[in-house]
Amino acid sequence: MSTDHVVPPTPRGDYVPAVLHGGVVYTAGMTPRRDGELTVTGQVGAAVSVAAARAAAELAAANALAAVFSAVPAGVRGVRCLRMTVYVACAPNFHDLSTVADGASAAISAALGADALPARSAIGVQTLPSNAPVEVDLVAAVG
Amino acid sequence: MSTDHVVPPTPRGDYVPAVLHGGVVYTAGMTPRRDGELTVTGQVGAAVSVAAARAAAELAAANALAAVFSAVPAGVRGVRCLRMTVYVACAPNFHDLSTVADGASAAISAALGADALPARSAIGVQTLPSNAPVEVDLVAAVG
Amino acid sequence: MSTDHVVPPTPRGDYVPAVLHGGVVYTAGMTPRRDGELTVTGQVGAAVSVAAARAAAELAAANALAAVFSAVPAGVRGVRCLRMTVYVACAPNFHDLSTVADGASAAISAALGADALPARSAIGVQTLPSNAPVEVDLVAAVG
Repeated sequence: MSTDHVVPPTPRGDYVPAVLHGGVVYTAGMTPRRDGELTVTGQVGAAVSVAAARAAAELAAANALAAVFSAVPAGVRGVRCLRMTVYVACAPNFHDLSTVADGASAAISAALGADALPARSAIGVQTLPSNAPVEVDLVAAVG
Repeated sequence: MSTDHVVPPTPRGDYVPAVLHGGVVYTAGMTPRRDGELTVTGQVGAAVSVAAARAAAELAAANALAAVFSAVPAGVRGVRCLRMTVYVACAPNFHDLSTVADGASAAISAALGADALPARSAIGVQTLPSNAPVEVDLVAAVG
Repeated sequence: MSTDHVVPPTPRGDYVPAVLHGGVVYTAGMTPRRDGELTVTGQVGAAVSVAAARAAAELAAANALAAVFSAVPAGVRGVRCLRMTVYVACAPNFHDLSTVADGASAAISAALGADALPARSAIGVQTLPSNAPVEVDLVAAVG
């Protein structure tokens, strides 16, 4: 996976995809959009299966990584993820958040190697923007 | 808007409004309090309209900015927001989180300019402290 | 309380307990596990009382502190908490999040002193991994 050439989704509101400061990049929360469209909507554990949610988390994390790379000068190497939050819009009785969040971790490993895995929080929430099932944000170190 | 002279709400618990470390300020989650009182309570998409929630998000973000300024020495310039999380307590079928969160972004733009807009996550949650409809926290760079 | 000798819970997924970068530690979200097992499960305001949730938040924060110490070289002093997020899985009408989150703050004060209290967000969410009632993550400065 080459994240250098992926463009992060255009913000759907008044914010920026990522900000670089002092060698640390903070990304916006990214949803599973491809070519601008959500690939899946709804609650995990209801309309959305665990497998579909895991794939959605992988895409959302890939978008978050693309946001990281969009904020750093071309050719910068040594990107390391520090922290990731994986929000999962889910049914009230759904607790297998780790399996869904592991999809996001898989995107990080695929792009940067297993050594780049960050600290992570997985949170089951009520809703996410545009009825997305997952949202992922990252803090990463560069250079 | 001059945030330099606004006092952030007093914490309702054992924490501080903001901490400065290494030129970065981390704020507590701020709710829409004015003179110590919440201006609105309840869930967005139920008791609270989108317009009221957007105004509440603007006030909460202004309070978070006040917390940023409370943590930096007087006269410091060059405050730049890096990251903002906007939590929205909402009805289970409410998905227009971006419109609500844009109220928080408006407070940042009004105080610091549109160039200061941060990366942002908008999250629809179950409840917030004291039944607040929105809560906003910031990471900002100073100096 | 000596957090130096506490081992943080083993991650239940593909992530690490904490990452140190530039003198700042970012922890994973920690739940109230003791010897690998959750001490309590369920929603606060339903199956879980406020008192039990407060104790669970204290344990979760102690685990997050253990994660901080696991990421810094032995003997490092001067740990200071910058930011803490306390997620509370709760009933839809539960709003006393500050009382629960104060349990997490108590763990910080006990280990590091009241001067070490961070900025804090308390958020009421739908569910947490493995049906945990609380999850706590930290950003801390070291050295």
